[in-house]
Amino acid sequence: MRILLHRADGKTEPWIKDFARYLPEAEVVVWEKGVPAPPCDYAVVFVPPEEMLPDLQNVKGIFLTGSGADGILRFGDAIPLHIPVVRLTDAGMGAQMAEYVVHAVLRYYRRFHEYEELARAGEWAPLLPPVREDFAVGVMGTGVLGSRVLEALKPFGFPLRAWSRTARAIDGVQCFHGADGLDTFLRGTRVAVCMLPLTEETNNILNLTNMAKMPQGSFIVNVGRGGHVSEPDLLNLMRTGHIEAATLDVFRHEPLPAQHPFWKEPRITITPHISALTLRRESVQQIAGKMRQMAQGEPVADVIDRSIGY
Amino acid sequence: MRILLHRADGKTEPWIKDFARYLPEAEVVVWEKGVPAPPCDYAVVFVPPEEMLPDLQNVKGIFLTGSGADGILRFGDAIPLHIPVVRLTDAGMGAQMAEYVVHAVLRYYRRFHEYEELARAGEWAPLLPPVREDFAVGVMGTGVLGSRVLEALKPFGFPLRAWSRTARAIDGVQCFHGADGLDTFLRGTRVAVCMLPLTEETNNILNLTNMAKMPQGSFIVNVGRGGHVSEPDLLNLMRTGHIEAATLDVFRHEPLPAQHPFWKEPRITITPHISALTLRRESVQQIAGKMRQMAQGEPVADVIDRSIGY
Repeated sequence: MRILLHRADGKTEPWIKDFARYLPEAEVVVWEKGVPAPPCDYAVVFVPPEEMLPDLQNVKGIFLTGSGADGILRFGDAIPLHIPVVRLTDAGMGAQMAEYVVHAVLRYYRRFHEYEELARAGEWAPLLPPVREDFAVGVMGTGVLGSRVLEALKPFGFPLRAWSRTARAIDGVQCFHGADGLDTFLRGTRVAVCMLPLTEETNNILNLTNMAKMPQGSFIVNVGRGGHVSEPDLLNLMRTGHIEAATLDVFRHEPLPAQHPFWKEPRITITPHISALTLRRESVQQIAGKMRQMAQGEPVADVIDRSIGY
Repeated sequence: MRILLHRADGKTEPWIKDFARYLPEAEVVVWEKGVPAPPCDYAVVFVPPEEMLPDLQNVKGIFLTGSGADGILRFGDAIPLHIPVVRLTDAGMGAQMAEYVVHAVLRYYRRFHEYEELARAGEWAPLLPPVREDFAVGVMGTGVLGSRVLEALKPFGFPLRAWSRTARAIDGVQCFHGADGLDTFLRGTRVAVCMLPLTEETNNILNLTNMAKMPQGSFIVNVGRGGHVSEPDLLNLMRTGHIEAATLDVFRHEPLPAQHPFWKEPRITITPHISALTLRRESVQQIAGKMRQMAQGEPVADVIDRSIGY
């Protein structure tokens, strides 16, 4: 078995070591620009460069080192439709997402973002917390990670809501779906947590029209993709106070450019795409198991449905 | 039944209304400086002024509107020992404490305090999270509130430890107690969360000697009383980096004076004693129930043990 590996950061050695540990029967070849790769059975990539496309034409499967497939599906049919594209599921990302989102929600609920501003001004001013019943947290996207985040929020007693493309039922969570459900979902959601896959349908979903449906003084937490949020619309709604604050981990262009206005907006909290880091060992372990299944002709979980994009 | 009420903030009307609702048989008299109170059955106070002492000599019970008794026990025997002093238990404070502490722990674990500094400098720099196994959270004080906080921390998978005056056993928590146990507790605790009652024994417990026992780069969260932390010692240890950051809700003098050096220390997060606000309705409901029990000669829970101070 031969595996073609691409890492955008060039740090391939630890991946090779982990594959040697969890899939010793495989030979790992590192993809290099300008060097045609030998025939390979499988590819391990996340956001492959366009120059890699020829080397992906004849593999039996493409394994992503992340949960979002938008980085490879941007090539459309240039990735032949018969090649299964397999994404990671959880692999330690669920726990990280839960930590990130619970932190952001508690920060806004207990008004710690305001206390930080007050402390910088040297002001001692107790503030009343919002009524918990008015502080509904709505998770957009109910896949493995979205469901895990909802579970982590449950003990804190906020009204919980979820929105997804198709109907779902989650215990203790008010579920909405489809274009029709989005309106009602947004009208009752005080903190919108975006965990959607990025597809043509979800691109720009947090735009002026949609965010304006949320109650006055709402909050945005984006751990999906930068493409989900209209950046100028968010700035507009923050300047009117309709959106009180936002915590953003993902952006249209990453790293966020130095001159981007988000850096200067005090109520926007910026993190550098760290809400769920790929845990290498867990990822290799999961990919190795799925490759063995695929090599034996067994069905493999988490194959991307190319017609819906995730 | 006649109740003598003192509120430091002077806002007595809502308390009188709530007593009318939950204990309609009682007449509530508001204590006024310079005006001798009529004979009363019970007093409802938290940190009564010294001038109130004569009016507390003949009541059958003193009910505190908070969980810490240090504000009244500072008078020692001037509060006759035969008068039971009853503190609040939980009354909505447990959930608030859990929110506050979980937020602070996640913030330090996921290095959000560093991302805030980086973002202010316009820097995009992903940081490696600490190893979870090296990030033990240790709660000092295992009463109702401390236990509640430990429960809230459990789903996040940090090693959990607790320290208390006397031996305790808490499922999933490594427990230490007494002066002997404190040393071992501190040596393995990365985040010390102080939830102790303030007594002669716990005064200044977070001093140079004790905090220096914690691992390099540790964190302090104080939601107990200002008296638990030696303020100059904390500043010293933060300047050497031994203590990386601290979240403080309570201080020796409150409001924290404008010229206090804590305001200028970027790694000290200051909140204005809001970690657990007294929820008036829940408190009056609880106090009313206990007063009825006491009036009928039944035993009442949460009576302060004057010999240990809580």
